[in-house]
Amino acid sequence: MSHSTISRAGCLARDAADPLAPLRECFDLPQGVIYLDGNSLGARPKAALARAQQVVAREWGVDLIKSWNKAGWFDMPKRLGDRLAPLIGARAGEVAVTDTTSLNLFKALAAALHLQAQGDTGQRRTIVTERSNFPTDIYMAEGLTEWLERGYRVRLVDSVDEIPAAVDGDCAVLMLTHVNYRTGYQHDMGLLTRHAHAQGALAVWDLAHSAGAVPVDLHAAQADFAVGCTYKYLNGGPGAPAFIWVPQRHQARFKHPLSGWWSHAQPFAMAPAFAACNGIGRALCGTQPVVSLALVECGLEIFEVTGMDALRAKSLALTDLFIELVESRCAAHPLELVTPREHARRGSQVSFTHPHGYAVMAALIARGVIGDYREPRIMRFGFTPLYTSFAEVWDAVEILKDILDNEAYDVAAERSAVT
Amino acid sequence: MSHSTISRAGCLARDAADPLAPLRECFDLPQGVIYLDGNSLGARPKAALARAQQVVAREWGVDLIKSWNKAGWFDMPKRLGDRLAPLIGARAGEVAVTDTTSLNLFKALAAALHLQAQGDTGQRRTIVTERSNFPTDIYMAEGLTEWLERGYRVRLVDSVDEIPAAVDGDCAVLMLTHVNYRTGYQHDMGLLTRHAHAQGALAVWDLAHSAGAVPVDLHAAQADFAVGCTYKYLNGGPGAPAFIWVPQRHQARFKHPLSGWWSHAQPFAMAPAFAACNGIGRALCGTQPVVSLALVECGLEIFEVTGMDALRAKSLALTDLFIELVESRCAAHPLELVTPREHARRGSQVSFTHPHGYAVMAALIARGVIGDYREPRIMRFGFTPLYTSFAEVWDAVEILKDILDNEAYDVAAERSAVT
Repeated sequence: MSHSTISRAGCLARDAADPLAPLRECFDLPQGVIYLDGNSLGARPKAALARAQQVVAREWGVDLIKSWNKAGWFDMPKRLGDRLAPLIGARAGEVAVTDTTSLNLFKALAAALHLQAQGDTGQRRTIVTERSNFPTDIYMAEGLTEWLERGYRVRLVDSVDEIPAAVDGDCAVLMLTHVNYRTGYQHDMGLLTRHAHAQGALAVWDLAHSAGAVPVDLHAAQADFAVGCTYKYLNGGPGAPAFIWVPQRHQARFKHPLSGWWSHAQPFAMAPAFAACNGIGRALCGTQPVVSLALVECGLEIFEVTGMDALRAKSLALTDLFIELVESRCAAHPLELVTPREHARRGSQVSFTHPHGYAVMAALIARGVIGDYREPRIMRFGFTPLYTSFAEVWDAVEILKDILDNEAYDVAAERSAVT
Repeated sequence: MSHSTISRAGCLARDAADPLAPLRECFDLPQGVIYLDGNSLGARPKAALARAQQVVAREWGVDLIKSWNKAGWFDMPKRLGDRLAPLIGARAGEVAVTDTTSLNLFKALAAALHLQAQGDTGQRRTIVTERSNFPTDIYMAEGLTEWLERGYRVRLVDSVDEIPAAVDGDCAVLMLTHVNYRTGYQHDMGLLTRHAHAQGALAVWDLAHSAGAVPVDLHAAQADFAVGCTYKYLNGGPGAPAFIWVPQRHQARFKHPLSGWWSHAQPFAMAPAFAACNGIGRALCGTQPVVSLALVECGLEIFEVTGMDALRAKSLALTDLFIELVESRCAAHPLELVTPREHARRGSQVSFTHPHGYAVMAALIARGVIGDYREPRIMRFGFTPLYTSFAEVWDAVEILKDILDNEAYDVAAERSAVT
C-alpha cells in the first residue's frame, strides 16, 4: 500500500478548520473513548437527558393523561416524521415515527403486494432481495409471504450484479437495504428503482444505515415505500421507534394487516368496524412508547442546524482518511477493505476483514476504540460527522496499528457481540 | 337510593387502618388532584425518574453499545416478563414485555389460527368476540382474517349471553377482553375458556384492564394465549411496551407472521433463513424501545411488596364505596351504574352514564377529579388500590355532587378526549 503523508498535526488542523466540529458539543460522549459505532447505536444528544426528565417528571408525573393532548403525545409519530422527512427527501405528511423497522417493513411489503394485486401485475409472486440484506428484513418478508399462502415467495440474490435479472416478470417487489449493514455498500437507489418500475415491480427501501448518514432523496428516486431506524445515525436513543415513509401518491391505497386503532379515521368513536384514516396515519397501529419516542426529537433537532450535503462531505473525508491511514500504517497486516472505495457506492462506515477480526475488535474496544464485529471476520467502523473528529480517526488507527504490530489480541476471546 | 351512613371521617379512619396506604409513597402524584384514571394511564412510580436518568445518562450516554449486554437491554423483554408473570398466574419463561397490545394480539391470534389449522379443527373459520370489545382488538382480528383470505372472519356478538352459542363448530378462537374497558364488566375466564375448549375452540384473552387490577390465574383457567398492557394498572409509563403470554404447552408450536430477528434462534449469526428460537422469545420481533421498556420495571417492583389478593380486597372496597356514595349522595341526578354490582363480575373501575357525561367529566377534571369519558355518555372512574385512598373517593363524590347540584358543567363543551 502507498505511504501516507498524513500526520496527527494535519488531522488536528482539519478539525480546526471543520465547520461541523462545534456540533460535537451537542453530544455527551464518554471520556477516553473513540466512538466509531454510531451505525449501531448513535451517541446521546445532551438534550435527551433533560427531555427524558421533562417527559417522565412533568408530562407523565404531573399532567398525566392530559399529556396525550397537552404535550402532543398523540401526534408525536407524525410530528417527528415531519422533522425527519427532509433528511430522506420526503414531504410533510409522508413519514411516521412508530413501531420497529421490522414491523414497518412488514407494513410496507404488505401494502406493496396489495397494490400489485390490484393492478395488471397481480400475478407476480416474488419479493426479490439480497442474501446479504440485514436478516430481519428477509425474515419479515418470509413471514409475510409464507402466511399469505398464495404462492408468494422471497427470492434471494447473491450479488448486486444479479439484481437486475432477478427483477423479472414474476417480481412484485424489489426490497433492498440502501446501505449494507456489513460492507457499507450503497446501492444506486434511483437506478434500481427505475429498473424495478420498468419491469413492473415496486421498490421498497430500508434506510436503516442511510437516514442521517448519506443524502437520500426518495422522491427523486421515485421510490415506492421506505422504512428506517432512528437509533443509529439519527441518535434517537436505544431501540427508539423506527420510521416509515409512504409517498402521497400511494397513501390512498396504502393497506396492511396491522390495522390498529391509531390508524382509524375516528379512533375515539370506538366503532367496531375498522375505517382507515387518510394520510400517513394509516401506517400507525397501536399506542406508542412515549418516553422513547420523545427522545427521537433530540436527535433530529441537531440535523436542523446543518445539512446532509455538509455531513456527507465530512463523512467521505473521514472514511477516506480512515481507509488511507489503515492501508498505509497497517500495511504489514492481513486487513482487507470490504467497503467500496467509490464514493457513490459508500455509506458512512468502513469495514475491514481480518482473520482474527473478532479478537482484534475486542482489543480495540478494550483500548477505548468502539467499533463492532460482524460475521464473518468483519470489523465495522462507523463514522458520524456530527461528532467524530479527524484526530480521532488518526488515534483509532494508531491504536489498531499498535494492537496488530504487537499481536495484542486474544484469539481465544469468546464471541458474544450484540447488535 | 338508600341513605348512606358513611362520613368523611369514616373514610379517613379506613385509610388509617389500610395496610396498603403506605404504598402511595411509591408514587409521585400531583397536588390537588384525585387521580381516578389509572385504568387509562397509571401514575408515575417515584423510582421511574431516577431509572430514566440512569438509562439515558449512564447506560446510553456512557456505556453506549456495551449496555445491550452490560445493562441487560437485550434480555429485558424476558426479564420483565418473568417479573410480571406472578400477577397473571403465568410461570417464568412464559411472558415477554414487547411491542404493543395490538401487535401482540395479532401474534396470538395468528398463532391460535395456526394451531387450529394443524389439528382436527382446521376447517374452523371464525374468531368470536364481542362488539363491545376494545375496538383495536376487533380491528387487529379483522386485519389478520382479511389478509389470510381463507374464509376466516370475525364474528361479533352483542351480549355476554350470546357468547356460548357463538362458540360453535365454526369457531376457531374465542377472543375476549377479560375486563371491559367501558363498563368494567369482568368475564368468568375459567368458565368461558372451558366452554371454548369443549367446543374445540381456543381462548385468547386481553388483560389490558386486568393485569394489576384483578387477580388473574391464566393456568388455572387453562387459557391458551393472553396479551395485555403495562401502562394502565401496572404503571409502566405512557405507551410502555405491552406483554404477551404463551404457556409452555403451546410454545413449541407458537408461530406467527411477525418473525423478526429478535425471535431467531441465533440472531447474531445473521443467517438469511429464519429459524425460531425456543421459548417465549418466539413472541419477539424487532429491537425494543429500551428507555420506555426499562421504566416498566419500576411499576412491577411495587407489586412485589404486596399481593393481588390484598389489592383486590381494597379495590372492591373502593369501588363499593364509590358506588354507594354516588348512589346515595347524587340520588337526585340521572346517573346510571353500568358496572356490575356483583364482585366477581367487576373490574377495578366504576362507570356511570349521565345524559351530559362528557360535560360533567370535563367539569370534574377542571376541579381536579381526573376520570375520563367514553362514548356513549359514560363517565369512567378507575380505582388503583396502590395509590387511591378512601378519603379521595369521598372527596371525588362530593365534588361530583356539587357539580351536579349546581349544574356547573358546560353541555356545549367540545369533545376531544384522548385515550
